[in-house]
Parts: sequence; C-alpha cells; structure tokens
Amino acid sequence: MALVVQKYGGTSVGTIDRIQNVARRVAKTHAEGNQVIVVLSAMSGETNKLVGLAKEICEQPDDREYDVLVSTGEQVTISLLSMCLQSMGYKAKSYLGHQVPIVTNSAFSRARIEHIGDEKIRADLDSGHIVVVAGFQGADCNGNLTTLGRGGSDTSAVAVAAALKADVCEIFTDVDGVYTTDPRIVPEASKIAKISYDEMLEMASLGAKVLQTRSVEFAKKYGVVVHVRSSFNDNQGTLVMKEDSDMETVLVSGVTYNKDEAKISVMRVPDEPGIASRLFLPLTEENITVDMIIQNVSHEGYTDLTFTVPHGDFKKALKTVEQTSKAIGAAGVLSDENIAKISIVGVGMRSHSGVASKMFQVLSQEGINIQMISTSEIKVSCIIDAKYTELAVRVLHEAFGLGDQGAESE
Amino acid sequence: MALVVQKYGGTSVGTIDRIQNVARRVAKTHAEGNQVIVVLSAMSGETNKLVGLAKEICEQPDDREYDVLVSTGEQVTISLLSMCLQSMGYKAKSYLGHQVPIVTNSAFSRARIEHIGDEKIRADLDSGHIVVVAGFQGADCNGNLTTLGRGGSDTSAVAVAAALKADVCEIFTDVDGVYTTDPRIVPEASKIAKISYDEMLEMASLGAKVLQTRSVEFAKKYGVVVHVRSSFNDNQGTLVMKEDSDMETVLVSGVTYNKDEAKISVMRVPDEPGIASRLFLPLTEENITVDMIIQNVSHEGYTDLTFTVPHGDFKKALKTVEQTSKAIGAAGVLSDENIAKISIVGVGMRSHSGVASKMFQVLSQEGINIQMISTSEIKVSCIIDAKYTELAVRVLHEAFGLGDQGAESE
Repeated sequence: MALVVQKYGGTSVGTIDRIQNVARRVAKTHAEGNQVIVVLSAMSGETNKLVGLAKEICEQPDDREYDVLVSTGEQVTISLLSMCLQSMGYKAKSYLGHQVPIVTNSAFSRARIEHIGDEKIRADLDSGHIVVVAGFQGADCNGNLTTLGRGGSDTSAVAVAAALKADVCEIFTDVDGVYTTDPRIVPEASKIAKISYDEMLEMASLGAKVLQTRSVEFAKKYGVVVHVRSSFNDNQGTLVMKEDSDMETVLVSGVTYNKDEAKISVMRVPDEPGIASRLFLPLTEENITVDMIIQNVSHEGYTDLTFTVPHGDFKKALKTVEQTSKAIGAAGVLSDENIAKISIVGVGMRSHSGVASKMFQVLSQEGINIQMISTSEIKVSCIIDAKYTELAVRVLHEAFGLGDQGAESE
Repeated sequence: MALVVQKYGGTSVGTIDRIQNVARRVAKTHAEGNQVIVVLSAMSGETNKLVGLAKEICEQPDDREYDVLVSTGEQVTISLLSMCLQSMGYKAKSYLGHQVPIVTNSAFSRARIEHIGDEKIRADLDSGHIVVVAGFQGADCNGNLTTLGRGGSDTSAVAVAAALKADVCEIFTDVDGVYTTDPRIVPEASKIAKISYDEMLEMASLGAKVLQTRSVEFAKKYGVVVHVRSSFNDNQGTLVMKEDSDMETVLVSGVTYNKDEAKISVMRVPDEPGIASRLFLPLTEENITVDMIIQNVSHEGYTDLTFTVPHGDFKKALKTVEQTSKAIGAAGVLSDENIAKISIVGVGMRSHSGVASKMFQVLSQEGINIQMISTSEIKVSCIIDAKYTELAVRVLHEAFGLGDQGAESE
C-alpha cells in the first residue's frame, strides 16, 4: 500500500463535470489499494473573479484581507470534491490550510511554509478516508490566513507529501510531462522519463512552465518524488527525483528559451570599487530582478557593464539606469529589447567537458552571434538576437541528440 | 464612547456599491467616537449559488462539507468591507468565525454557539480598529467549520455583542423596525419604539420575520439591547430590550397572523393513558413540528384531538395520522388546510384581565368563528377560517388601539 498525493489544477476542477472526473481518478487510485491525499486549486477563473472584486474597491488592497478573499476559491473545490467522493460511496474529508495545519510565515500573498502537522490527516487516512486539502493557502502562527502566491498549490502538494512521507506526489496538468524542449518549436521533442531536481529547477526558471520553482526546491529539500503527468490520460509522465547514475550519462537533458528579457548596457563605467552596487541598488529598491550580469575586464580604468531584466520592468529599469549612469560618470546607456536567452541544461555537464564549446560552435555554424554568456555547473545560457530563437532551439536540440534520447526513454 | 455591533444582511452587501455604502455608515458610527464591530452575511444570492453547485453533485450533501462550502460567502464580504474601510483611511481587520473564535457544537448546518473569545477583538478595538466579523459561521472544538442555519448572522451579531458586552446590537434590515402588525394589511400599523424580548419572541415565531428567533433568545439570555433599523435611512427603529414599566401599560403590542398551518382532527379517540404519545410520536419521528394541540374533555370514554402542523408537512402528517388513528381505534380523521392563526401579543396582559375575552368578542362581532384557542402569559392565538385573516387583523389592530399607540411613539 502506497501513500499518494495527487494535485489537480484549476482547469481540472473548473466545472462540476470535471470535478466528477477528478473524483473518478482519485477513487481509482484509492481502489488500487493506495492511501490518497488530494490537493486542489480553485476553479479556473475564480481567483481572477475575486481579484476583480477587490480591484473595484482599490488598486492595492491590503495583503491580509486579500488572502482572506482569494483563499475562498480552494475552499469551494475541496468541499465539492469531498461531496462527490462521498456520493460515490467513499469516505472523504476536506481540510483547509489552517485545519491541517499548514503553518506559514506572515508574508501575506507570498507566504512560505514553515511547518505542516501530519497527525490529523494521518488518523483520517488510517481510518480509510480520502483526504482533500486546499492548495495555495495556510495560516500563520496567529491564525491569520495566508496564501503562497500564484501556482502555490504545487508547493502545497509537495509540502504535504514531504510532511506525510508520501511515496509520490503526482502533479496533474494539461501536458504529458516535461519535454526536452518546446514541442511547438521542435516536433521531435520527447518526454523526459526522469529528471533531477537541479535540472528541473533550471528548466523551470528558464522558461519551462510545468512546475512552480518553489515546489521543486521543496521537493529537493525533502526528497519528494514528483510525478508530472496529464489529467487527460493515464500515460506515464516525468519523474522529478534525486539524481541517479542514469542521468549523468545524458550530457544535455533539455533546451529552453526565454524571450521575456531585455538587455541594458552601461558604457565606459569608471572601474572603481562600489560602482556596481551604486548601479544595481536603485533597481533592487524598485523590485526589479536583474538576471544575467556581464562585466568585462577594464581598459584604461573604464569598463562596460551589461545585464538583463524582465520585459515588464524594462522601461522603468532603463529610466533608472540612465539617471544612475550620469551620476557615476559613465559614457552612456545602450539597450535592446529584441533578445532571447537560449539555455542547455544537464547534470551530465558536471563530468563532461566541451559541452559549452559545442553549444557555441553549433550556434556559430548557423551564423548566430552570441551577445552574452552565463554558465552554472549544469547549464549554459546564451543571449542571442530574438529572431534566431526557434532556429537556435532546433539546432541545439538536434546537435545534442535529444530527439534520440527521448525515443529511448519512451 | 460606546461599543456598537452592527449587522448587515445579504441585500446590504449584495454589490460593491452597497458594500461601499455600508462602509460609509460604519465609518460614520466610528467617527462619532464609538468602537464598532461589524457582522456581515454573504452577498445576497451567493449562498443559493453555492447550494446549487452542491445539489449538482448530490441531493443530500454531507453536512460537514456543506458548511465548508457555504461559509465562503461571508469570507468574501468581510474581506471586501475591510479593504473598503482601509481605502477610506480606517484601520480595519476581518475575522472568520474560527478566528474570533466563535466556538459552536458540532451540529453542522444548524450549530449552536457555545462560547465566544473576546480577547483578540478587544485588543484590536483598543488599538483603534474597526472589526469585521463573518456572520453565520463558527468552528467546533476540533476546528471543523460550522454554520448556524439560515439567518444565523443575526445570532452571530447578538452573540458577539453579548461576549464583548456591547452597548447595543444594531440589526440593519430592509424595514424600519418592528410594526404593530403587517402594514400591507393595515396601513395604519405603526412602528413599535421598544418591545420586550418575550414579546419579540412571540412576534418572531408567530410570523413577523424581522429577527431570527434564536437571536432574540440569545439577546434575552445575555441582556443585549437589539436595535432593529433600516439600512436605507437614519430613522430610529425598534429597541428589543428588557421589559420595563412603560411596556406594561400597553395591553397589546402587536397583532400577528400565520397562514402557513393546517389543521388535523382525530375523532372519537379512546381516552386512555398513553394515547396522545402514541398519536404524536410517529410525527416527531418524521421531524414534523406540531404547533397547537387541543384536547377536549372526554365524553363516555372518548375525546376529540385537534392539532396544527406546517403546510409543508401537511400531506405527510395526514398520512401518518390516518394510520395511527386506525391502530388506536379512533373513529376517523378530519383535516382543513384553509386556516389561519391570529395572535395578539403583549406583556401588559399579565397584569390585566379581559384581554382574551375582548379578542373573542371582537372576532365574534365580525361573524368570525373561532376554531381553536391557545394562550400563554403574554399572547392569545385563535385559529380561524383563512379567508377572514385580513379582516381579523384589521379589527383587532383597531380594537386594541394600536394605530394610536404607534402615533405616540413616532
């Protein structure tokens, strides 16, 4: 008998019909002899509707009250699914975040889980109940309701799986699993059978939007095996798990791209201690996340500094940087919104040299100029002209044999 | 500085516009130097919408899950009102039932309040907050969410007022207060300035649907002064409070009617010990509430037994009684659905004789036959033919001078 946590997103519980489908799948897992904990999101569209009501009142609603408002969405779905399971003859019981309890810090609307109580759920599972937990929400130690931020239900599911020492945390979504790259660009892209936490983190933060980054961090920290799979079929999906020796034999697991960044260069910056912090501090104060930063060696006491920011923050960032640039005596600011970040990810890189240079070579053969480079132990990212995005993804996917690897792992 | 509890029903918070109206009224009370606790219902229609979702799944949803579902309604309104007050510059904080805490027993969907914690709310009031509490809901001692049944928000408000020792509990509704009778029947009906708990209980349970009966019981038990008033104007409404000497000078405070009953008579019942219980036990088992029961003195070992039941239960009750009637050897069963109960209520009756006989005389002068009579210390009820309802109400209202009394109290 295994303990299985299943998480269903807003689309999967968007109507009564779909909730009944979820109930049938949950019931099947239970009937196969497993203990089941279900974690649910709100009905799709519901959270936006509630946010709309709040915006009618004021542009920037109070965080505490905002969490009270939006956490009603999951409360509706967990009670409806429980009723549904009961009407099918199963014992079922819903749990709100504060009932579990899922204890978080008090950072309303972006709270972090600090502790999860397992006693009440354990007792219900042992007495044959299917337990249905509200995702996305918790409560701080003073009993104030909190939410974990958009997509937080993934994190709830993994955290509950960790606390209850579940055998697997199944994340049901509208795709079959994690792919070697975006199948819309490369039709030969293949589903990855298993992937390490670190690779998944790189994939998630680099643009593959299957799993919330924080949920993967949580899974890694507590060693939770996450199974990303489709809610529309019974196919095996992708296992996100601890690195094993199989994984290391694969040089590159996936190719990702991100068109949502823009580039800003500050020219002829006086190369003095403290200059970088004077440049970036104003951006931090405006909550602008800077991604890649490149500083070349200086010539004659001056250097060029280039970095990327999200498109949404570009205009604000440019304005700020132009002011700072004058203040620190730089020569000027250049910018480019038409860039893309292309990355290759794989734990195999650690033990194999030449992966980065192969990437550079492949891009160069296609006449694609590399504007910036950034590397970690298990990934290489290049900034290129945005118009080459699809081409770059295709040739890299091909060059690292990802179509083949996929075929094997099917 | 007074402590005021204000309760607003579903219609008063049915749209964002109306919630903003409520906020202005609350703010005004606060600005006048009072501490304010607001108790809210769900937006009108919202609870029905949620119940509709549950009914799509099954006809008889589990009580525990039902309460989880329907208690989301107030959670939405309290957060929205708090945001609204904050956007106007006031400090405001919402409280769910379990956060107060409002501790109830575990009778889901019809829970009774056992205890209310006052510490957290008191601290917030003392630091200048307007406190916004979800009506209708609580939690049992195991943290399960519970609801108090339809109209339970009145009870929440009175209970919170009792726990916090508020100076007054204002119930805002769509009428100006409690009237001497139904103004649709008697245009001269006048608003009652003050009424005792016992009178209000009789009025409420006899058909004046202004306040939930349980909220009045609670108010009586804890001596909470309840002010029933309109949310559409600033007029003084009706104070429901402890009996005082003024009240005793009024013979009759109000005339009420109830057309929602039907009459069943069992003829020639053998007058033996235990017969009544054999007749009524089967009805109790079917959850049918029997209202008036009349048993005449017996003749030659037989008696006639007549009682009334709600219209909705009439068919079921009749069927059951016909079976029992045969079993106990009665002669037969007669029934009548076209009846009405007319009552006069007033604490003054205690110290004045002749009120009942005046009622009988007034009805008789109009040729209205009295079919059954039932009395308590402060009320007299008569069952009459339903077609005389309006006539009876008018002549009694006139005969006891209620139009005049109203004029004085305006």
